Amino acid sequence: MADVHNNRRILLASRPEGEATTANFKLVETPLAPLNDGEVRVRNHYLSLDPYMRGRMSDAKSYADPQPLNEVMIGGTVGEVTESRNPSFKVGDKVVGVGGWQEYSTSDGTDLRVVDAARVPLSAYLGAVGMPGVTAWFGLNRIIEAKAGETIAVSAASGAVGSVVGQLAKAAGCRAIGIAGGAEKCRYVVETLGFDACVDYKAGKLRDDLKAAAPEGIDGYFENVGGDVLDAVLEQMNAHGRIALCGMISGYDGQPVPIKTPTIFLRQRLKLQGFIVTEHMDVWPQALKELGERVASGKLLFRESIAEGLEAAPEAFLGMLRGKNFGKQLVKLI
Amino acid sequence: MADVHNNRRILLASRPEGEATTANFKLVETPLAPLNDGEVRVRNHYLSLDPYMRGRMSDAKSYADPQPLNEVMIGGTVGEVTESRNPSFKVGDKVVGVGGWQEYSTSDGTDLRVVDAARVPLSAYLGAVGMPGVTAWFGLNRIIEAKAGETIAVSAASGAVGSVVGQLAKAAGCRAIGIAGGAEKCRYVVETLGFDACVDYKAGKLRDDLKAAAPEGIDGYFENVGGDVLDAVLEQMNAHGRIALCGMISGYDGQPVPIKTPTIFLRQRLKLQGFIVTEHMDVWPQALKELGERVASGKLLFRESIAEGLEAAPEAFLGMLRGKNFGKQLVKLI
Repeated sequence: MADVHNNRRILLASRPEGEATTANFKLVETPLAPLNDGEVRVRNHYLSLDPYMRGRMSDAKSYADPQPLNEVMIGGTVGEVTESRNPSFKVGDKVVGVGGWQEYSTSDGTDLRVVDAARVPLSAYLGAVGMPGVTAWFGLNRIIEAKAGETIAVSAASGAVGSVVGQLAKAAGCRAIGIAGGAEKCRYVVETLGFDACVDYKAGKLRDDLKAAAPEGIDGYFENVGGDVLDAVLEQMNAHGRIALCGMISGYDGQPVPIKTPTIFLRQRLKLQGFIVTEHMDVWPQALKELGERVASGKLLFRESIAEGLEAAPEAFLGMLRGKNFGKQLVKLI
Repeated sequence: MADVHNNRRILLASRPEGEATTANFKLVETPLAPLNDGEVRVRNHYLSLDPYMRGRMSDAKSYADPQPLNEVMIGGTVGEVTESRNPSFKVGDKVVGVGGWQEYSTSDGTDLRVVDAARVPLSAYLGAVGMPGVTAWFGLNRIIEAKAGETIAVSAASGAVGSVVGQLAKAAGCRAIGIAGGAEKCRYVVETLGFDACVDYKAGKLRDDLKAAAPEGIDGYFENVGGDVLDAVLEQMNAHGRIALCGMISGYDGQPVPIKTPTIFLRQRLKLQGFIVTEHMDVWPQALKELGERVASGKLLFRESIAEGLEAAPEAFLGMLRGKNFGKQLVKLI
């Protein structure tokens, strides 16, 4: 099959200066080379778009090497094996991997994991039963260490990570407070996902609304956005509160946003901890098992924003950085 | 004896607006009442001046109640029992307690602990073998969890807490980097206390000097000052660094100073944790035992700035907030 196909791929054409734009990306079409011994070819069905990619586009000092210029953009994918010269994979296997922004990916299989797409929809392995889900699980259980009866808040609450944080918090007997942009997202967070309250940060009275949503203060906070939202939540933190710092999307695309009153960390004896879930591979099996069971049994809900076709990826990615997505942002590639 | 004495005391006369001034304090002289059953009278020899007192002077939300107006300023003291109607204390006992800014204190004894002033000088119980020492011990061992070979930095390094942090870090096999204000303090930190390096934050090239002092980056940071020093240290933190947040003296006396680039917490997966050592009484016996033995055997050195007489306390306190003290700030009361 491979010899009849060209592969469409999106490369990083240039590094952003300030805000990222579509001009930083370039769509190219290249022929697929025949497989070597040990290699696997995957037709990618879905590409995951994630905030961390913005960091890779810059060459500032980071925990990860920058995305090289003129190479295919990094990205998680799910798809189906179409050709295999590797005994661990057979044609038709559904796999999750890091195939990048392209229609076909070719690898030695070390980044691929065969998944069961019968009980859990394939795309969920990029969301609630994938890296975003494990991220939520780790922050809530290993950093916040949420206990029944506590109030747990999460920003970007309707997103891939935030929606799992709140639902797991509820399942653990906590009060779950979401923060999201817009009335529609907030309604979804409360009515569909079952959070106790959701604060619309675009409504212009973030501090009052947070106070009303968390009348007993906030014990644990899962942070995805940073900036003014973080400042506002800090003011409501209870003594000995814990903050899992997963993302600061407000500072990715341009200047970093300061924390205005860091003395709160001292006054309330708070813990703030940044983390990267790929550095905690030991928890993945346990977390994925729990998340998969919850999704399969309908106890963990998720929502997806699906852009159609590889060429839609750059716009969808930039929109996600601005909060335009509603749920896990994916690109459907087939 | 008591009936022949008046007691000189310093009260909080008014709350500071912005910077604290001597006008916020008032010296009064009041007669000592006869002791009731169960009470102990202590002639205070030394009063401890500590940054936390600045927080108590304001009535902003805090972990502790504000210091009431027109009452004696709170403060740790060491002294000698001069009169006792409490069977646990006898005249001549040396005690450490929270006697406040006054020459005599009277209590039911619950805040008093009899100490051995033979092996360890009495004043040390307000410093290296007291709250500042235990604060250093807790932050280094329980939050930073310093390991041999790591680089540990501490601000206000010549002070009561910082000097213990660095000496304990050296004893644990770490590289110890001090940050202090002025060449004289830095010389003391390196030449007398044995730190590996000390950066003078007043020398005008904080970032370059920090980089030179910690060529392999900083794994643990014990923070006493906040502000620009914290921002500069953050830039040098290694992945998975830990920051024990003990004080932010730069923000006490006026406006809080922001953390400029909080994305570093995420990028380097840092932990920041605020703490108050009086909330961790379980470690005090172990810490005091270790600190006392180190002081008695000459392995833990300390330095004191001693103001003479109760009336000197307000000026000495304000000077300490501005970093004028050199070592633990005390007031000698007898």
